[in-house]
Amino acid sequence: MKTLGFIFPVPLLTQWLQTLFLASLLLLMPFLPSQGQTLQWTEVVPGVWKAVAGQPDDYDLLKAAGVRPNQEALAKMAKADFPLPKNQIVAEVKNGQTSLRFPLQVGEQVYGFGLNFKTVHQRGRVLQLHVDHYGKEDNGRTHAPVPFYVSGNGYGVFINSARYINVWAGTGIRKDSPVPPKIQDRNTDKNWSARPYSDAVEMLIPAGGTEIYVFAGPTPLDAVRRYNLFNGGGCLPPRWGLGFVHRTPLTFNSSQVLAEADEFRKRGFPLDVIGLEPGWQSKSYPCTFAWDPVRFPQPAAFVKQLTDQHIRVNLWTNPYVSPESPVYADVLPYSGSHTVWNGIVPDLTLPQVVQAVSAHFQKNHLDVGVSGYKIDECDGYDHYLWPDVATFPSGISASQMRQTYGLLLQKETTDWFRNRNQRTYGLIRASNGGASAYPYVLYNDSYSHEDFITALCNSSFSGILWTPEVRGSKTAEEWLRRMQSVCFSPMAMLNAWASGTKPWSFPEVEKQVKEIAQLRMQLMPYFYTEFARYHFEGTPPFRSMNLEAGFNTEARLEVQSASLNDNPYTEAVLKEVKDQYMAGEFLLVAPLFAGQTSRRVILPRGKWYDFYTGAFAGEGEVVTVTPGLDKIPVFVKDGGIIPMMEARLHAPEPGEKVNLQVRHYGQKTSSYLLYDDDGETFNYEKGQYAWRELKVARQKDGKLMGSAAKVEKGKPNTINAITWKFMTNP
Amino acid sequence: MKTLGFIFPVPLLTQWLQTLFLASLLLLMPFLPSQGQTLQWTEVVPGVWKAVAGQPDDYDLLKAAGVRPNQEALAKMAKADFPLPKNQIVAEVKNGQTSLRFPLQVGEQVYGFGLNFKTVHQRGRVLQLHVDHYGKEDNGRTHAPVPFYVSGNGYGVFINSARYINVWAGTGIRKDSPVPPKIQDRNTDKNWSARPYSDAVEMLIPAGGTEIYVFAGPTPLDAVRRYNLFNGGGCLPPRWGLGFVHRTPLTFNSSQVLAEADEFRKRGFPLDVIGLEPGWQSKSYPCTFAWDPVRFPQPAAFVKQLTDQHIRVNLWTNPYVSPESPVYADVLPYSGSHTVWNGIVPDLTLPQVVQAVSAHFQKNHLDVGVSGYKIDECDGYDHYLWPDVATFPSGISASQMRQTYGLLLQKETTDWFRNRNQRTYGLIRASNGGASAYPYVLYNDSYSHEDFITALCNSSFSGILWTPEVRGSKTAEEWLRRMQSVCFSPMAMLNAWASGTKPWSFPEVEKQVKEIAQLRMQLMPYFYTEFARYHFEGTPPFRSMNLEAGFNTEARLEVQSASLNDNPYTEAVLKEVKDQYMAGEFLLVAPLFAGQTSRRVILPRGKWYDFYTGAFAGEGEVVTVTPGLDKIPVFVKDGGIIPMMEARLHAPEPGEKVNLQVRHYGQKTSSYLLYDDDGETFNYEKGQYAWRELKVARQKDGKLMGSAAKVEKGKPNTINAITWKFMTNP
Repeated sequence: MKTLGFIFPVPLLTQWLQTLFLASLLLLMPFLPSQGQTLQWTEVVPGVWKAVAGQPDDYDLLKAAGVRPNQEALAKMAKADFPLPKNQIVAEVKNGQTSLRFPLQVGEQVYGFGLNFKTVHQRGRVLQLHVDHYGKEDNGRTHAPVPFYVSGNGYGVFINSARYINVWAGTGIRKDSPVPPKIQDRNTDKNWSARPYSDAVEMLIPAGGTEIYVFAGPTPLDAVRRYNLFNGGGCLPPRWGLGFVHRTPLTFNSSQVLAEADEFRKRGFPLDVIGLEPGWQSKSYPCTFAWDPVRFPQPAAFVKQLTDQHIRVNLWTNPYVSPESPVYADVLPYSGSHTVWNGIVPDLTLPQVVQAVSAHFQKNHLDVGVSGYKIDECDGYDHYLWPDVATFPSGISASQMRQTYGLLLQKETTDWFRNRNQRTYGLIRASNGGASAYPYVLYNDSYSHEDFITALCNSSFSGILWTPEVRGSKTAEEWLRRMQSVCFSPMAMLNAWASGTKPWSFPEVEKQVKEIAQLRMQLMPYFYTEFARYHFEGTPPFRSMNLEAGFNTEARLEVQSASLNDNPYTEAVLKEVKDQYMAGEFLLVAPLFAGQTSRRVILPRGKWYDFYTGAFAGEGEVVTVTPGLDKIPVFVKDGGIIPMMEARLHAPEPGEKVNLQVRHYGQKTSSYLLYDDDGETFNYEKGQYAWRELKVARQKDGKLMGSAAKVEKGKPNTINAITWKFMTNP
Repeated sequence: MKTLGFIFPVPLLTQWLQTLFLASLLLLMPFLPSQGQTLQWTEVVPGVWKAVAGQPDDYDLLKAAGVRPNQEALAKMAKADFPLPKNQIVAEVKNGQTSLRFPLQVGEQVYGFGLNFKTVHQRGRVLQLHVDHYGKEDNGRTHAPVPFYVSGNGYGVFINSARYINVWAGTGIRKDSPVPPKIQDRNTDKNWSARPYSDAVEMLIPAGGTEIYVFAGPTPLDAVRRYNLFNGGGCLPPRWGLGFVHRTPLTFNSSQVLAEADEFRKRGFPLDVIGLEPGWQSKSYPCTFAWDPVRFPQPAAFVKQLTDQHIRVNLWTNPYVSPESPVYADVLPYSGSHTVWNGIVPDLTLPQVVQAVSAHFQKNHLDVGVSGYKIDECDGYDHYLWPDVATFPSGISASQMRQTYGLLLQKETTDWFRNRNQRTYGLIRASNGGASAYPYVLYNDSYSHEDFITALCNSSFSGILWTPEVRGSKTAEEWLRRMQSVCFSPMAMLNAWASGTKPWSFPEVEKQVKEIAQLRMQLMPYFYTEFARYHFEGTPPFRSMNLEAGFNTEARLEVQSASLNDNPYTEAVLKEVKDQYMAGEFLLVAPLFAGQTSRRVILPRGKWYDFYTGAFAGEGEVVTVTPGLDKIPVFVKDGGIIPMMEARLHAPEPGEKVNLQVRHYGQKTSSYLLYDDDGETFNYEKGQYAWRELKVARQKDGKLMGSAAKVEKGKPNTINAITWKFMTNP
């Protein structure tokens, strides 16, 4: 690993001058002229304020998600003042539409707006937040277009509306702006900009009003934490959810699936969940939700056989009901005007339809031991989804239904499991604001490894989880690179429904693929703890670098196009970092993509160490690494404590104890709270959990020593012996 | 030229069977169940019906365009019945939104919806009609998103709303559809379709109502003609507008422009219009609209010097007003809340602002002899245009203003010239429904030659004109191929503002470029007549093959993607023809693109002849042509009569007479009405025009002979001698 000795470049002088110029203007003109109303803000929980513009819809994102704030955890967070100048937040309701304006400071960056695939920096972007498949462009149409943004200055803004929201995130310029951009002559001025400076985020909501929430910091991560805790805290998956997930081909029958599970075991490849694809249903697209009697003649026995082997079964479905489904007749009166792939569309806001569907699903799936669902195609794509002219019996509009269908599906299915005091962990293709607490991971049909990593970064701003799933690959190199990054994500999944690829399909890298899957298993205690922090503290387990203290992006201008023939408005963009991310408290992951043999990694302030060797890697600098094909570059923060268990094929079952090896990196003394509970139920909500301190102190001889707090009586404990390994100073 | 002897393939048997199956269902269930209201239709002019759904906006496309139907011409068209089953057209107004539904028959194709660049067939597409730059995808966001569609079954539908209109053109499927698609099991059925059959065009208008117009056929071309005549008839440019147009580099000064004109003359290269780019203004982006005192110290003398050489001057501008503009103070109180590139945005619906701007423009531009404008950047691109939260003093919403800004600019500027009884012909980057009569040609910043030809085809469905302008080229081959097609378009333009390329910049093809520009000049009597037919009969001068009688597209299914990993919903699309088009009554143009040495050409029913040689080329078949680099393939319909003048450098001035050579192709006796007027004024509106018959009859000896009707006394005549040339049977 070669270290380049340069420090972050300071912003260019001209940028500083511009900043000073604009900042002085700000001082001279402290108040934005207000058109429209300023808002009345109420602190609904500590550090979270609400305002109401106009007359909001009866139906909104938080209602659809059924959000219950975690008051207790929010109360524990630091008190904070309202983070924005209130008089600069302006709302105007006119002709049934609501306009909003929020101020931006010079140099302020904004993040979020849901699951974007290309960009992390959102200032300067124009979006219509609209649930949709991802069409290879970040325009707001995405699987989870969450109307929540986080400012680099340390606060968050959430619009609680289930409408398509238009966002101008720092592009519109009012003629009465107190911070007007400089006028330049394009004829003669080479510095003329196609995108003059804008001092506001503006939004348009096609409704007569909306609720608005503001979340305090002081850091961007704190704002995200408050948002997640307001949504009830992040989800805590069952332990097995963090193991390896494999989805079998479309029309595999029960024997084939069982044989596949056997093959995993024989090869010593970890496997916690097997996902069945549409072929488990008697018919699909539209769906019957009924087991196919030929391919799966004995569902209960089949599921039991796998569960006995510590392998959970997950079922694919989409929500569109076939006339041949047993639930069709009950759903029909409560379905929308239009069909999707010839299936009727349940109005999931109606209790009647939820009840009708629920009975069938619980009896035929949950009762026989199914662990969860992969809920497909609830995001849309205009060519197959119900059009916006569709009507639903509840009176909820087609667009509101589209914005919330993923939320409703998550809520409905999670409730089924919750009612059995059983955790689930599944896949969903649509989500929105208010979803933090739902145990669902987003995925999609696009397949750019680079985009997948950007999405993983962005998911952390919006209370959603994302998996950069592996499906197939053209080369062994690509295969291994994808496997490496998916093992550092919320769900380590091989989704081989179409390709039928196995983890060992590329023999030249079979060993390495197995190693990375085993590493995933070894890291389970660490990742499980980090998910517990997501739940109890709101901290996303996989995070953008922009949420990391001590991180600064390089302010480097890149010219996009130099040809006036091709694009006459040549634009410069600020470089953003979207190809590395934090995995939990201590790990920094920097994936390589097929074709790369080396890459640059930005190490934030403080010392960083190589995960595999413990060697010093750098300190607040950009390093270039050449890790070889076998390894995904992972760095550990100074003082990092990583609890690891042995490489197993399956997650520990409730009551089962494991031995821990706790690694420590670097020079710092430190401590880490290891989370523990039964791993399967919601009993942690009743206090049945433990945070056990793992502590590294310096002895009199100067050597580091690790110790674990005693297990509290009556508290869950799944740990047997603990050994310590000092990676940097053995 | 090699002729392949195959005829159009008949549709596949399975398609026929499906068609029969669906058709039989149609017979069994004649009525669509109606949700919402059916409409009251009034025949407002013969063959044109209007209905009103809900409470339409006060402001709409036809009002913005100031449309005055050509009642007289419409009355001349064949009487027709209402072309659709009225009870199957359904409107519903709910929560301030209007839903519309129009029936589609099995096998019916729809065309139009404005300036699309990728597709001609619109059935199966989902669009939001939204004025915007073209973002390399046909999604409704385009420079002219005209809410008018033409059915292959011979009728048209126009929505007179200045809102963003969502269109599902045959994708949505109601669960109560009388023609439901067949339900298939994706698990087992290889023919499962990701896009099941839909029997309706559905639309959503975010307003409490709208006017709807239906135009009768019987042919698709007739429906287009009625639409254009309803808009006042197509525009008739001045004669010089059909000559060669050249735009000089950004900051050329008057001496450089004059030198450039000299160079054209010296090289014998045609030139009718010189366009000045932003540098003629003292400052631009934002604009002053004032001549730069250094680059253009004597505007009047400069313009006169060019006009005396028979070269007109066209001025670039965009509408955004600089604080340094002489009109700024007058416009300021009547401008929108937001700026565009630091310029204020005039509210062009207000008479005060029109008057303020008008005085300056007339005095400083029209009075000194400027012939017209190129009005840039009125289309948008969300990153620089006013956002939809902007407000305007008239109360017109930001989105309505965006939908109509191009219309308002066309109307305002055309009126200035009309008031002087002077025709203009310019460029505009945004348009919409109702614009047929405006003498403006659309252009844009994208630069795909293929897309440009598709746009030319599509322009004919929507009452708009499009130029596949030439800007620069990577190779001499591309240069020549682009020059060849632009010379068969509404405006033969070299737009070299950025590249500074000259027609002779590629010496290896200079001769050929000159020849094609000369051919353009020779064809001026023909093209001018065809534009007169656009005005008097509504027939677009450059047309999609789908408007040509005897043309059928090949019904061939092409699979877009074969990899389920890349796209799990593999879709088949019907091949469409978008790379050849009709130029006037008789010519079929089939451009080649760089890299091609041969291409397939679909010749409609009837005999076709090679334009250059008169040789028989084919008859209702697909031929493959290898024309060499020098020639663009052009074919002439049997009996084609093409009036041509000598190759000149400039269009004839009023009062000037030219000699004609009239070509005849093929075997058929035929006749053609040659149009004539003064070429510059609106006196044709007062009857000062002539249609002179050119006739080819067979003599007793079997030979063809041509004759021209006598010039009627008191009627305009710009023709001196006429000679005939029989290309096929000399």
